[in-house]
Amino acid sequence: MAMRELARALVAECGEDSVSAAPEALSAASVDESCCAPALPELVFWPRESAHVQRALGLCGALGIPVTPLGALTGKSGGAIPVRGGLALAMTRMNRILEISVEDMVAVCQPGVITGDLMKAAETRALFYPPDPASLKECTVGGNVAENAGGPRALKYGVTRDYVLGLEVALMSGALLRTGKRSIKGVAGYDLTSLFVGSEGTLGVVTEITLQLQPLPRAVVTALLCFTSLDGAARAVTAILTGGCLPRTLELLDDTAIAAVDGAGFDFPPGARAALIVELDGESSPRLMKELDALALKCAPFDLRDVRAAASDAEREHLWEARQRVSRALLALRPFKVSEDVAVPRSKIVEAIARVKAIGAAHGLLTATYGHAGDGNLHVNFLYDDEALRPAVTRATAALMEMTLALGGTITGEHGVGLAKRDFLPLELGATSLGLHRQLKSLLDPKGLLNPGKVI
Amino acid sequence: MAMRELARALVAECGEDSVSAAPEALSAASVDESCCAPALPELVFWPRESAHVQRALGLCGALGIPVTPLGALTGKSGGAIPVRGGLALAMTRMNRILEISVEDMVAVCQPGVITGDLMKAAETRALFYPPDPASLKECTVGGNVAENAGGPRALKYGVTRDYVLGLEVALMSGALLRTGKRSIKGVAGYDLTSLFVGSEGTLGVVTEITLQLQPLPRAVVTALLCFTSLDGAARAVTAILTGGCLPRTLELLDDTAIAAVDGAGFDFPPGARAALIVELDGESSPRLMKELDALALKCAPFDLRDVRAAASDAEREHLWEARQRVSRALLALRPFKVSEDVAVPRSKIVEAIARVKAIGAAHGLLTATYGHAGDGNLHVNFLYDDEALRPAVTRATAALMEMTLALGGTITGEHGVGLAKRDFLPLELGATSLGLHRQLKSLLDPKGLLNPGKVI
Repeated sequence: MAMRELARALVAECGEDSVSAAPEALSAASVDESCCAPALPELVFWPRESAHVQRALGLCGALGIPVTPLGALTGKSGGAIPVRGGLALAMTRMNRILEISVEDMVAVCQPGVITGDLMKAAETRALFYPPDPASLKECTVGGNVAENAGGPRALKYGVTRDYVLGLEVALMSGALLRTGKRSIKGVAGYDLTSLFVGSEGTLGVVTEITLQLQPLPRAVVTALLCFTSLDGAARAVTAILTGGCLPRTLELLDDTAIAAVDGAGFDFPPGARAALIVELDGESSPRLMKELDALALKCAPFDLRDVRAAASDAEREHLWEARQRVSRALLALRPFKVSEDVAVPRSKIVEAIARVKAIGAAHGLLTATYGHAGDGNLHVNFLYDDEALRPAVTRATAALMEMTLALGGTITGEHGVGLAKRDFLPLELGATSLGLHRQLKSLLDPKGLLNPGKVI
Repeated sequence: MAMRELARALVAECGEDSVSAAPEALSAASVDESCCAPALPELVFWPRESAHVQRALGLCGALGIPVTPLGALTGKSGGAIPVRGGLALAMTRMNRILEISVEDMVAVCQPGVITGDLMKAAETRALFYPPDPASLKECTVGGNVAENAGGPRALKYGVTRDYVLGLEVALMSGALLRTGKRSIKGVAGYDLTSLFVGSEGTLGVVTEITLQLQPLPRAVVTALLCFTSLDGAARAVTAILTGGCLPRTLELLDDTAIAAVDGAGFDFPPGARAALIVELDGESSPRLMKELDALALKCAPFDLRDVRAAASDAEREHLWEARQRVSRALLALRPFKVSEDVAVPRSKIVEAIARVKAIGAAHGLLTATYGHAGDGNLHVNFLYDDEALRPAVTRATAALMEMTLALGGTITGEHGVGLAKRDFLPLELGATSLGLHRQLKSLLDPKGLLNPGKVI
């Protein structure tokens, strides 16, 4: 009854083509790129403007209907899966870049803009939007804001939150909130912007985003460093960072990750048991090549086997495509995988990487560790070929989380809590913090209808 | 009665020398560096550990006593003035640097540490804590966190919030909250850290701070660029920034600011009507000198008169001392001043600077505009020599705020709202945001006892 009333109101106010209850539409909105089970919504709604979102939230609130916002569904923690049914609020048609201001170094866009499109639009004006999640060709800026997405360049440039100056947010109360500013600095009031960034669509729905941009670096050098041991590569990461050099990326692939992408148009030297993708940026290529030489010298004592700098943009692209392919390529090694996203303090990178292998071995699972080693953010995958091993994976995951927290780390570096990490969150936050989380949630969503079942 | 009970309990639990009601102690805690009227507390308490702060807040909550946290009292918005009397919670004895980890690139400290001391401690380990408020030799890290302090280097390096990884916060409930993380990345839960940073001691009292550090830049070049017109200097700022160069500072002094510091051991060339202090950092001095030449070339069309690079560390120090002296030196020109702290989007810098002069002229007031022109954060001062002009200052201030908001700016770039800007805050935030501010405040301080009368 309530759903029918919602559908009727949305059609009347926002147009016939703005909603669908067709099986293929519901099915498309039921799943993301996490390991979480799919769940069908009852209706999908595609707003075209902020007022549509406001209206949908107001109606859902009044009618008691759960509502789950979603973008490109590339999330890795189940955050956009409508586990309580209800309305799927698909933000993909709100996909306009509203402004790129060269003088202010600011971009304003709707949440459905593809991240890679925003980057390209900035680059044509010699500006730079640094956050680069692996899914950047598909994922949306709104999704990145909801999850506070990172990416390889976070090492030097920080994560999505570091670039969000201001937001427009539709609240469950039906109000439209403006947070933040357009100036670079500003301290008027509490930092509501940062509160909504990374809140995974549980506190409000972002309808417009103001982003800070940077000058585009004039030169970039990318290189693949191969090592004959994983431990050597891990030690090299620490040696590079404590040597006072801050590359823009320092990505690790372990032996399993190498095996997954090797061959597929991409050849690693024989004997490579680990690799680092190092990218430096700055004023001039010759200077960066000198920096790369110095960096390689620092890695020499740690089983470094080979250094290959990309000789062209095409080679550079190719290298990054290999890196971006890892997550999906692992499924060619084993039919099932569970992907985790822990982060540890930099001094614990070597130990964490070694302990992941030990946890895998103890539970009879193949592990792949890759990702943003430079900032301690490791994508740990447990791979297996029989559903019967699922209990072992669950135990291995618990051991991984325990190990990470014991090292002073976090259960999720950049993928978000969503559904996948929800049960582990209390271990990290403790009772006082969790209590405050619950209070904030009920302040902004008293009926618990907005992205229910997620985070807390 | 209640005050006597509080004093007795604090003495019994935290030691005799931890409290004072002596007139000189009360008087010292009654005033900061703003233009706000002093107000006396009834008791001053100097906690030595987190548990003391927890206990003080718990007692004040139970007894209904207002409590105002304070650091070095160098604030410029009256945020630490105990306008409702009660307890002054002086954090200055919690002044230990607990750890500087080279491998993690992290510092952990108590809130009473002097900012400059933390910087120096980091530098001895080749690490860098960038935020540099003008009061850095006196102000505390805790005060910087409360106000989300900026400084000249914010142009390239961001503000205090950008360096706070995690906090320990004592709440009015008597609980001790841990927020954030020690790893560089982490998205587990809502960003409570950013919520407390810049909340001006109205939501909780910070008792421990975990800060991210950076590699110390190997070379720094500082130069004074003098212009024969203020408009020229303002246009030069825009030309530098849109040219793809991001100096670490781009500080403006207008003619009034120059007059205030000129002579006092510091000579400007004749005819200088405006100046920029430009600082670049990077890998090597020769390369930075080349960058400086290129930057000066960009300024040449805008009434540039003179470029002087500091030839030694002593000269560099001297230049920055002149800059840091401006605020106090202005009082030598006129006995009274009201100091504002607006920020505008970068494209509006030229217009804002011109309009400040016009506002001063329209109200018969001498103006000084100086500060962080590169990020649009202007310290506008109205100077006057007769209290009878106070109503004109009030009108000029209102005109300044209106102008700033019309240009898409903010009423406070880095000094905070406190008492001084409180009446203007609703103009900037609007009703929805202000309502959410009030809800957050009453969630964390239901009786309104923590730093009462501030911000909202």
